[in-house]
Amino acid sequence: MPNHVIPPRSGTAFILRQGQRLKVTDPQGEQVSDFVCFNLNDTAEYLSSGRTIDYAETIFLTTGHPFYSNRSNVMFEMVEDTVGRHDFLLTPCSADTFRIIYGHEQPHRGCFGNLSEALAPHGITPDRIPICFNIFMHVTVDGDTGKVGVLPPKSRAGDYVIIEAKMDLIVGMTACSAEMSNNYSFKPIAYEVLA
Amino acid sequence: MPNHVIPPRSGTAFILRQGQRLKVTDPQGEQVSDFVCFNLNDTAEYLSSGRTIDYAETIFLTTGHPFYSNRSNVMFEMVEDTVGRHDFLLTPCSADTFRIIYGHEQPHRGCFGNLSEALAPHGITPDRIPICFNIFMHVTVDGDTGKVGVLPPKSRAGDYVIIEAKMDLIVGMTACSAEMSNNYSFKPIAYEVLA
Repeated sequence: MPNHVIPPRSGTAFILRQGQRLKVTDPQGEQVSDFVCFNLNDTAEYLSSGRTIDYAETIFLTTGHPFYSNRSNVMFEMVEDTVGRHDFLLTPCSADTFRIIYGHEQPHRGCFGNLSEALAPHGITPDRIPICFNIFMHVTVDGDTGKVGVLPPKSRAGDYVIIEAKMDLIVGMTACSAEMSNNYSFKPIAYEVLA
Repeated sequence: MPNHVIPPRSGTAFILRQGQRLKVTDPQGEQVSDFVCFNLNDTAEYLSSGRTIDYAETIFLTTGHPFYSNRSNVMFEMVEDTVGRHDFLLTPCSADTFRIIYGHEQPHRGCFGNLSEALAPHGITPDRIPICFNIFMHVTVDGDTGKVGVLPPKSRAGDYVIIEAKMDLIVGMTACSAEMSNNYSFKPIAYEVLA
């Protein structure tokens, strides 16, 4: 059983050492976890979607893919993936997301606000939170028109990914707060450090 | 005639004031310009591909689209576009790009190195250069497999885009250094501030 649970619409941050494996589980199914990481020893080095997609030559990252930093160093690799569909294009949902996309007048602070709070003790300011790797998020892209869509995740209860750290990392993770991302039902995310 | 020319495989940076329009021209055709901008008055605010794609609900940005910062403020809008195809997924080519993708042993510093040098006098360090808006870059995405491809730009000689600044900006721009991006022929990029 995973020994950490991120409650619905919240976030956390922790240290993952080089060589350690992190298992991220969707305990109920159809939930998303926004994931970001920074080099523990120099937090100006961060997870880069642009570098990762460029080198992988795909927007769909899964088992076997290395994930690169803005300095083109490998931060982690995905070693298991029972779902095979995640997003690496979109920024974490935020108060602005809920205002602009959902039209909410008193918007939730979203994954962005949750990551901001969780990462603050590690000296990472909100402006430095980049595009996240949105685990289990199901985003479609129409190659002809460019249109982006958000569908319910393909993950079912118990589905998971395992990543292996290739450097000492500060990890930020959430149980996502955006209705569209999780089929309009807020749920927890579970995780454990395997070794 | 545009009054500024960026020579092949080089870059520049300049200030664009709120309300000014910037015309970026491909003088010979099939050339790419990596474009990035920062809030002149607080450079921690920068152009965000993730926010822009999220709010536009498309990966293909063109006339009429607002371009957002990491703080979800509009930095500029595109007001004219004679090509209609640009990229907003990939990071600027760099020495690492040439090493990892092209296998070059003595790699060029690329758009990333050129932007780093051009932006340094404005106090912007290399680590803070995000995914750029790659004007005229022709990137394909297969919506089924996720595969990303780079094709020759659709731009022909004289094609251009015009953007209008919605805040005071520091702009960084290049004439791209990557062979695949410009059909294996390095060319200049021209620009002018219209008002």
